[in-house]
Amino acid sequence: MRVRNVKNADTYILDYPTIVITNYLDYKGKWHTYFKNNNPIYVEIGMGKGKFLIENAKRNKDINYIGIEKEISIVYKALNKVLEEEKLDNLIILHADAEGILDIFEENEIDKVYLNFSDPWPKNRHEKRRLTGPIIFSNILKILKGDLEFKTDNRKLFEYSLIQFNNLKLNIEELSLDLHKDKEDVITTEYEDKFTSLGQVIYYIKLKEDK
Amino acid sequence: MRVRNVKNADTYILDYPTIVITNYLDYKGKWHTYFKNNNPIYVEIGMGKGKFLIENAKRNKDINYIGIEKEISIVYKALNKVLEEEKLDNLIILHADAEGILDIFEENEIDKVYLNFSDPWPKNRHEKRRLTGPIIFSNILKILKGDLEFKTDNRKLFEYSLIQFNNLKLNIEELSLDLHKDKEDVITTEYEDKFTSLGQVIYYIKLKEDK
Repeated sequence: MRVRNVKNADTYILDYPTIVITNYLDYKGKWHTYFKNNNPIYVEIGMGKGKFLIENAKRNKDINYIGIEKEISIVYKALNKVLEEEKLDNLIILHADAEGILDIFEENEIDKVYLNFSDPWPKNRHEKRRLTGPIIFSNILKILKGDLEFKTDNRKLFEYSLIQFNNLKLNIEELSLDLHKDKEDVITTEYEDKFTSLGQVIYYIKLKEDK
Repeated sequence: MRVRNVKNADTYILDYPTIVITNYLDYKGKWHTYFKNNNPIYVEIGMGKGKFLIENAKRNKDINYIGIEKEISIVYKALNKVLEEEKLDNLIILHADAEGILDIFEENEIDKVYLNFSDPWPKNRHEKRRLTGPIIFSNILKILKGDLEFKTDNRKLFEYSLIQFNNLKLNIEELSLDLHKDKEDVITTEYEDKFTSLGQVIYYIKLKEDK
């Protein structure tokens, strides 16, 4: 997702330190102390403009949500969308890159990870940048103690990811090659709304680690 | 695939004992002696009207092909299609049910298995009849020493099968969620031609057993 740069976004976010957490490295291994409860912690890596995570946070007050987004201009948009809502104590945003995820979370600290419409990085030489590629994904599995949900409209990325998951001998808990035909009341992303309205199928998988 | 019954098909096939082999139980564990060579043996379970296997047999004279079909009226059609061709020494048909496959082949006797557009048996109570269901599929894996290729237009069957393969920890060698977009020169079945011409995507997977 490309958004034109928003001027001063990096200083703007500083005005909302309880929504966009800048000292996030301090909380590695102790995110429960940040939220002041022992509720499960769900992380969306690549949160985009925030619709998916905000809707989840509104529906499930007993779950803590952390959205990670590396593009500052998109963090800005997500922040503004959060500000449109009633105060959400269970949702925070980190302006961070998935490549550094082991600096942000302790092993097994996260109860669920969402990967929604991750950048497919279609060129072979960019495989290492894919969230479901061997490098970043192995780190994601480290921080995860529960399950992982991944959805995408990108067929090639989904095929590639299925083979990665197979190589890692991960357990498929649920699978759909046309999510919106199979499930009602799916919480969607902005991107998903746009492409499903054009008739694009959404591929979905839920994995469970053996831990 | 349902075809109206062809009268006397069961006696008609007896006139072609080198194409439709009726004493097939005699060859368990010694199919190489039947073909009088040591070429690999590929089996299509549910061969339908025969187009796929005939085309394969014509292109690959150094591979022996065995088509299995349980509906006599379809065996009749496949036989007639074989009779339209130049003599094919490397293709035979068995009128048999996949459920009895362990009586036909020895363990590890088969180099490749094809499952093309298998009956989806969509009702849960019919799961045991699905070729990729737990019962028949475990027998297929027993006779197989090489890889298995499965294609279908049935999304639910493909999703179900992917989860079965995952439970069995099988290795995915190739995967496509739109076979005809990914590959040219695919050898098709009659059924496949009909449905791809209507714009239906074909799902494809190639598995390799760790043996």
